[in-house]
Amino acid sequence: MSTEPILDLAQLAHVEILTPDLEGSVRFFTAMLGLSVTERRGDSTYLRAYEERQHHSLKLTRAPQAGLGHVSWRVRSSEALERRAAAIEATGRGRGWIEGDAGHGRAYQFDTPNGHRWELVWDVARASVPAAEQSGLINRGSRRPAAGIPARRIDHYNLTAPDVGAERDFLVSTLGFMEREAVVTDDGAVTIASWLSVTNLSHDLALVPEGASATGRLHHVCFYGGTNEALFDLADLCREHGIALEHGPGRHGIGKTTFLYMMEPGGNRIEMVGDAGALIFDPTFETVRWTASQLPTAAVWTGTEMPASFWNYATPGAPADARVA
Amino acid sequence: MSTEPILDLAQLAHVEILTPDLEGSVRFFTAMLGLSVTERRGDSTYLRAYEERQHHSLKLTRAPQAGLGHVSWRVRSSEALERRAAAIEATGRGRGWIEGDAGHGRAYQFDTPNGHRWELVWDVARASVPAAEQSGLINRGSRRPAAGIPARRIDHYNLTAPDVGAERDFLVSTLGFMEREAVVTDDGAVTIASWLSVTNLSHDLALVPEGASATGRLHHVCFYGGTNEALFDLADLCREHGIALEHGPGRHGIGKTTFLYMMEPGGNRIEMVGDAGALIFDPTFETVRWTASQLPTAAVWTGTEMPASFWNYATPGAPADARVA
Amino acid sequence: MSTEPILDLAQLAHVEILTPDLEGSVRFFTAMLGLSVTERRGDSTYLRAYEERQHHSLKLTRAPQAGLGHVSWRVRSSEALERRAAAIEATGRGRGWIEGDAGHGRAYQFDTPNGHRWELVWDVARASVPAAEQSGLINRGSRRPAAGIPARRIDHYNLTAPDVGAERDFLVSTLGFMEREAVVTDDGAVTIASWLSVTNLSHDLALVPEGASATGRLHHVCFYGGTNEALFDLADLCREHGIALEHGPGRHGIGKTTFLYMMEPGGNRIEMVGDAGALIFDPTFETVRWTASQLPTAAVWTGTEMPASFWNYATPGAPADARVA
Amino acid sequence: MSTEPILDLAQLAHVEILTPDLEGSVRFFTAMLGLSVTERRGDSTYLRAYEERQHHSLKLTRAPQAGLGHVSWRVRSSEALERRAAAIEATGRGRGWIEGDAGHGRAYQFDTPNGHRWELVWDVARASVPAAEQSGLINRGSRRPAAGIPARRIDHYNLTAPDVGAERDFLVSTLGFMEREAVVTDDGAVTIASWLSVTNLSHDLALVPEGASATGRLHHVCFYGGTNEALFDLADLCREHGIALEHGPGRHGIGKTTFLYMMEPGGNRIEMVGDAGALIFDPTFETVRWTASQLPTAAVWTGTEMPASFWNYATPGAPADARVA
Repeated sequence: MSTEPILDLAQLAHVEILTPDLEGSVRFFTAMLGLSVTERRGDSTYLRAYEERQHHSLKLTRAPQAGLGHVSWRVRSSEALERRAAAIEATGRGRGWIEGDAGHGRAYQFDTPNGHRWELVWDVARASVPAAEQSGLINRGSRRPAAGIPARRIDHYNLTAPDVGAERDFLVSTLGFMEREAVVTDDGAVTIASWLSVTNLSHDLALVPEGASATGRLHHVCFYGGTNEALFDLADLCREHGIALEHGPGRHGIGKTTFLYMMEPGGNRIEMVGDAGALIFDPTFETVRWTASQLPTAAVWTGTEMPASFWNYATPGAPADARVA
Repeated sequence: MSTEPILDLAQLAHVEILTPDLEGSVRFFTAMLGLSVTERRGDSTYLRAYEERQHHSLKLTRAPQAGLGHVSWRVRSSEALERRAAAIEATGRGRGWIEGDAGHGRAYQFDTPNGHRWELVWDVARASVPAAEQSGLINRGSRRPAAGIPARRIDHYNLTAPDVGAERDFLVSTLGFMEREAVVTDDGAVTIASWLSVTNLSHDLALVPEGASATGRLHHVCFYGGTNEALFDLADLCREHGIALEHGPGRHGIGKTTFLYMMEPGGNRIEMVGDAGALIFDPTFETVRWTASQLPTAAVWTGTEMPASFWNYATPGAPADARVA
Repeated sequence: MSTEPILDLAQLAHVEILTPDLEGSVRFFTAMLGLSVTERRGDSTYLRAYEERQHHSLKLTRAPQAGLGHVSWRVRSSEALERRAAAIEATGRGRGWIEGDAGHGRAYQFDTPNGHRWELVWDVARASVPAAEQSGLINRGSRRPAAGIPARRIDHYNLTAPDVGAERDFLVSTLGFMEREAVVTDDGAVTIASWLSVTNLSHDLALVPEGASATGRLHHVCFYGGTNEALFDLADLCREHGIALEHGPGRHGIGKTTFLYMMEPGGNRIEMVGDAGALIFDPTFETVRWTASQLPTAAVWTGTEMPASFWNYATPGAPADARVA
Repeated sequence: MSTEPILDLAQLAHVEILTPDLEGSVRFFTAMLGLSVTERRGDSTYLRAYEERQHHSLKLTRAPQAGLGHVSWRVRSSEALERRAAAIEATGRGRGWIEGDAGHGRAYQFDTPNGHRWELVWDVARASVPAAEQSGLINRGSRRPAAGIPARRIDHYNLTAPDVGAERDFLVSTLGFMEREAVVTDDGAVTIASWLSVTNLSHDLALVPEGASATGRLHHVCFYGGTNEALFDLADLCREHGIALEHGPGRHGIGKTTFLYMMEPGGNRIEMVGDAGALIFDPTFETVRWTASQLPTAAVWTGTEMPASFWNYATPGAPADARVA
């Protein structure tokens, strides 16, 4: 049997978050996480982190409720885009091509089995950085900002799914995702949660079970802070500036990343990882399967067990019982 | 009225901990916290951290139960020793002079109102450091060890007291302790817990309420790690090497120190602080009084609220319901 | 012989720096180090760090040249103020009482043998913090700022002296400073540089040799950042925002503090320490004497040897050959 | 034109270092960097870091002189191995297949234009971890060690080349390396140094100019420490334990990694990176070209310029003028 993998997806391109408090959300991401606004268009504001060169990695869109707009993935070549569009088309889940959006060209959109809107894109614009924001480093997207605890880049996102296994199977077979870690029932029969990547990161996305009778919900979007001190500093800053902290700092067993969870003013959960955990280079890496009994260690290796809100709250949804600063 | 303070105590000299598992306790402090053994005598082992120059800051003594042996404080001069001995004598709590112990000369012993054994000492021996353990820095006690996450020095200890206010009053009026922070009932009438120091640290010792019908119990002894990364690293190491973690990393409101709590093999709670918080230099610093309603923030500024074991467990006592690695 | 020390000085109160670019200097301290402006009066701006409660720890005054205005020390009691004023008076170096300045009451001024202007003060005002800047922590001076890499407090300063030994002798005998570390000639006869404190810090001030035929010059003022990451972060930020870095990060042998040196826009050298090194609690601590031959290790324990500018540049003075971002 | 890249190499498998002091080298990597010995065979010792699962990432071989044995790269599939072997064969540089070595099966060996011995391998054995060294984390190679400042994994290596451009061209066209950054002459005509990767790291290997009339020399091998504190801690530990430090901590412009350089007892230069810098996910990432004039910033973004030894010393070679602890 061939050992040749599908290698057509290159990276998470951007995530669109819906927010009932656009101004508050923009203020949070710029003042607390140091993101820069690239463009404002209609009800949307496009942002990027200072180590990113693309037009945006985050799109904030005004909406009645918090939640996910769509996620966008960049393919590795124009041929790869055609190949993946055809593969999705064959599953009957394709929605077809759009002309593009601010910062990128034509994209192929589709809905996953669990009801999230995705798109694949090849043609992505580089951010136009004002002279005053240009870095002294020619390999850095823009100048390190002097505001907040600056995130370096988007890291991953986490969505809920009523049927995690079905969603995972679709992503693996159609898009070439590699399942890096999973939580399964003690008998191994059912996948409860799944962490997948197309890069060397331990996860570019995660899928967790959907408790509510809902689909298409967002658990969280994560940005990379780069150091554990950033988590301590950001937690302090959030407490001082009225941002609700949910949990952390701590270290997950899965991925071995260090984490801090908070609620942005629109109500969506945001994570910052400090230590990126262990990268995966091994081409024969086999999915690490944690049983339900091992969930406490999988969720938290060092730190306190996740609070109830972490298991119950996603957006759109009822307000979290998150700890409020 | 005179503003002249009593300035006769200089520093925490050492703490004696009782342990039913002397070998396990010694192994924990040397392999996990990087302490060095200075001397073994009878049922006791004397240890010091690598930035300490005195003979020992920790004495471990074999005993049927975990708990506190005694605490020892160093005065600022021989005259100060006589002054404080006389002041204690006058309260009727003095037990009198002992000839000394390994590493120090004559000491004046007494029991505090809440039943803890204390002593004051002036004449303290410097550790004799083997050539192989000497540092390349002439201002460092001994070579930075290559084992564990090395603590730099003892930081403070925390004892339980059925009547915190009475204990605090004794320490302030007789010994010159300054009460830096306190938790009081919402009406301000009763002191529930108290943090005191004679140095620029926010606390050299703490007093917390005694829930059990017991006296003389130990809540924890704390060592200084020097960085927040040390807390993440030590937590990881403890999980890997079978040491039960209780809580953290997190940051206390009181003192603003970052913390990690664990249980040493003898059953005593040990803390490591990473960030020492804010030193107090202001000679007119007034006690910061947190009301009972503010206790959550006082206990934890960033991180998760303290677990039930933190409020219930002291030594000697029933086993903690601490999280076991 | 009595072992009783003089314990009349409590802390460094504030430092006045002269700057030919007042606006640039204020911008540096607020945007890069996160200080807050407490008051502006005439040609002076008064600033404080977020963990400080006093009116100011830094006074910036417009002047034709960079350099030192004066340094101010707080005594431990009103009696201590009278005692020290009398002691200075007796040396013939006293200049007498001033009525006070923004943020403090009457102060006793004098000039040290090496020509620096000092004052002693007891009555210091607490900063009036606007509601929007108040912290969620009742034991914190003001809210942790979201700007720059916020310094927590002033740490120490360093002045040049043509005769370090004479200056040190004056400070020890008249004011009660303890000499913690020194660099001496290989025969021990002459003190080349000296580190002194009245607190548990390894140094509240330092004296280094004056190469130029000048007196009263400033080598640097240091702020406490609290973590080593703060040094990496601040170095990055300075490079991006046009602040000249001189040296670091690295770790001094003396004091064992980690350091970063930079030039503020007015031309004065500023240090941030990350790790505060080892506090000194031992009341019998003896001065650690490094010989001239040991200077390389004394100056830098880990990192690169100090650049020539560090030994040659002080303010007022010729421009540093510091590395410019 | 097709935008389809070659994606046949997956990761750096291992590096073989020659050492005239095998015992000293093994002691350094185990006691200072926390590596574990997997196997000893003849004159070679095989080691791995605790986040690695493969048999070894470092092979130390006794030899009269320090230097490089060979480097080994893992391909992404068995088909990929055949494809690359054929491609190399076609260049005339192939040496042919070997049966394997401890920890891996058949490998294809070849010599690069600049004279370094390489091999490609697919079949790699997983380390057999003794029960006592197994981790509490099922996704971790082995238990975090309690010794030294434990490296997590091998990161990259750096070789010298008389003709960097020719070496780079061979690696890009034959093996599919992507050149991420380069230093070129000011006219852009000649590549002076080159950083390449097949993973999301900014570099899996680097090529620097060969000053001596020599080929096949090693500049350094780098391990990943994971935090900046690890660099401060390791520097301190090396100074205390007789390991010569060469440079750092500091942050490179190229790759934006933080670094510490030291000399292992065999004489080879070893780097630890703390912060891994910015990962590269963009499939259209274009080589960042620094001109010779920009070299100072490219080499060091924050910290001190590289010492002369960094530009002059490689192994085998004359002893470095590195700073000796």
